[in-house]
Amino acid sequence: MKVIEFDFDTQELQLTEREQPTPSDGEALVRTTRVGLDGTDFHTLTGEGGTPPDNSNSLVLGHEAVGVIEDPNDTNFEKGDYVVPTVRRQLETGEAETYFQNGEQDMAPIDAVIERGIHRQDGFMQEYFTSEEKHLVRIPDKLAEYGFLVEPISISEKALDLAEDARSGFHWNPNSALVLGNGRLGLVTVAMLEADDRFDTIYCLGRTDRPDKSIELLERLGAEYIHTKDTTLENFKDTYNGVDLVFETTGVPQHVIDSVYTLNPTGVVMSLGVPSVGNFSELDLGKFQFDLVLNNKAIIGSVNSRDTHFETAIDRIEQIPDWFLDDYSDGIFSLENYEDAFTRDDEFVKTAVDFEK
Amino acid sequence: MKVIEFDFDTQELQLTEREQPTPSDGEALVRTTRVGLDGTDFHTLTGEGGTPPDNSNSLVLGHEAVGVIEDPNDTNFEKGDYVVPTVRRQLETGEAETYFQNGEQDMAPIDAVIERGIHRQDGFMQEYFTSEEKHLVRIPDKLAEYGFLVEPISISEKALDLAEDARSGFHWNPNSALVLGNGRLGLVTVAMLEADDRFDTIYCLGRTDRPDKSIELLERLGAEYIHTKDTTLENFKDTYNGVDLVFETTGVPQHVIDSVYTLNPTGVVMSLGVPSVGNFSELDLGKFQFDLVLNNKAIIGSVNSRDTHFETAIDRIEQIPDWFLDDYSDGIFSLENYEDAFTRDDEFVKTAVDFEK
Repeated sequence: MKVIEFDFDTQELQLTEREQPTPSDGEALVRTTRVGLDGTDFHTLTGEGGTPPDNSNSLVLGHEAVGVIEDPNDTNFEKGDYVVPTVRRQLETGEAETYFQNGEQDMAPIDAVIERGIHRQDGFMQEYFTSEEKHLVRIPDKLAEYGFLVEPISISEKALDLAEDARSGFHWNPNSALVLGNGRLGLVTVAMLEADDRFDTIYCLGRTDRPDKSIELLERLGAEYIHTKDTTLENFKDTYNGVDLVFETTGVPQHVIDSVYTLNPTGVVMSLGVPSVGNFSELDLGKFQFDLVLNNKAIIGSVNSRDTHFETAIDRIEQIPDWFLDDYSDGIFSLENYEDAFTRDDEFVKTAVDFEK
Repeated sequence: MKVIEFDFDTQELQLTEREQPTPSDGEALVRTTRVGLDGTDFHTLTGEGGTPPDNSNSLVLGHEAVGVIEDPNDTNFEKGDYVVPTVRRQLETGEAETYFQNGEQDMAPIDAVIERGIHRQDGFMQEYFTSEEKHLVRIPDKLAEYGFLVEPISISEKALDLAEDARSGFHWNPNSALVLGNGRLGLVTVAMLEADDRFDTIYCLGRTDRPDKSIELLERLGAEYIHTKDTTLENFKDTYNGVDLVFETTGVPQHVIDSVYTLNPTGVVMSLGVPSVGNFSELDLGKFQFDLVLNNKAIIGSVNSRDTHFETAIDRIEQIPDWFLDDYSDGIFSLENYEDAFTRDDEFVKTAVDFEK
């Protein structure tokens, strides 16, 4: 079967042949239908992230996948069921065992887990993959086409959950949000919030000039686009109303601090971006802490997601308009043209490799 | 009756005479027994905080009080009941009404509330004060002596609650904590944590050289003292185990950022200090965000507290050893020597004015 792998020695992406895997006890065999790309994949290509499996110098990429059960083996799936795999797996050392037992592997220490397609285990950009039953989430057939969006949406669903947990000790009724970044994750976060009846006002801050497809998409959803050249986070409230929730998807670390100033009292900044270390800033931390403390604000880091977030994301996809899902998924390439998904990503909002094309 | 007030025009603290207040409908008359001092009071004296009531240039100080019901008026209290008053009151504009109705006034916007003894309403450093029944919390007679510690302990109880709320979406079992600062608030926070069976390891970071009474107190409680000259927060984990929870009580804003590095994955920094604005730092925010996001860490600001935190604090005082409460409350001065409580605070751990001495 064909796989898309990244060779850490040559720093090259390759379409290669491997033997089709055989499911072990408790595993099903899945025929891959579609795999999306995101910033994490590009980090691997640029050397900013990614780790090959032990005793290997190459990693099969892809962690945003959907596929169809080819061989249920001894699992409860049936042949033809569409499934989305979760990403984290337990390291053999067993340090993360309790987290996995509780279904909370997304909260496990990063050093105690492996991540398929990212850290130390091959991902899903292969024609067939095997996975334990407990790491596969069933998706209705009618949504299978959008199944590769479940993982990225689940990232924002987890962040929304963590924010609500943080404010669960009092009556918190968020109705406004600011999404930092109009990239892949920013856009699905806007779509998630627009599909959530509680949010009346959704802003999205970006540095893209018009005309731009992502701006058109988020405006059609009902969000307001704000260009960074027109408004800084520090002065956001001079022009716009404060917000209850910020989703930072940019990986620009100063945004984490400055977005506190855009919040209403008791508001929450959810930080999702992975920045480069060695990113120095000079700033008035006195002003920052004064606002954080006296207004009961919070900043919460969030990474990965768990089965329940995948399930919420599947429900959310049903609420997001089809036109958005179709227009957002504008860079779908066949396996033989897989390189376009990696190299032409600045021309498209969201690229993916379609294994059935 | 005698009151201790701060004149914002002359910037002087004075013991003056005022007419004894008469309780309105729904209010009780309380005879003050003891009022503690904390950093907020000193901020008023140094011009860094505090606001007099409208149409006045002077503020009766004191927000950490205990007293005894002198006239229940039409409330459900009985003469002789010991009570502790909460601090926040509703502004007449009514903006904070819902917060007060829900008993969550500590989460109200700071601009929508007044705070007795701090912002726009006289405090409790007067021989008698009146208060609505709903803003008085009953304390058992046997604990009345320590009643002035209920308010400061409630600040840390609220912070502990907010931290637990933030982690309520998964199994979080904190057993270690780091308290930044061995001042008044830092010490009662250590005492609170030591009285909580879940916490096995408690560190306290300070900049005080030995011999020092606060260090002796926290060590006798079972905490480990760490001098800032020996260990920076950034390098804390080189020497000590990571912690699940940080309580920042210093008002040093860079501590809020750097203490993220002392946390275990999923850990929480509770920021309680009120810093000076215009406190610039240059730091590697990339490293900060990387750790925050990939390890699911959180930073939460917390100010003030509500009735339920006062009640928890009263229960906590029963669990804290008497020797600590006595040795901690080492600077208790009579009303005629009230100036010593304000000027000799560096000789004592905790100063207070005793209205019965």
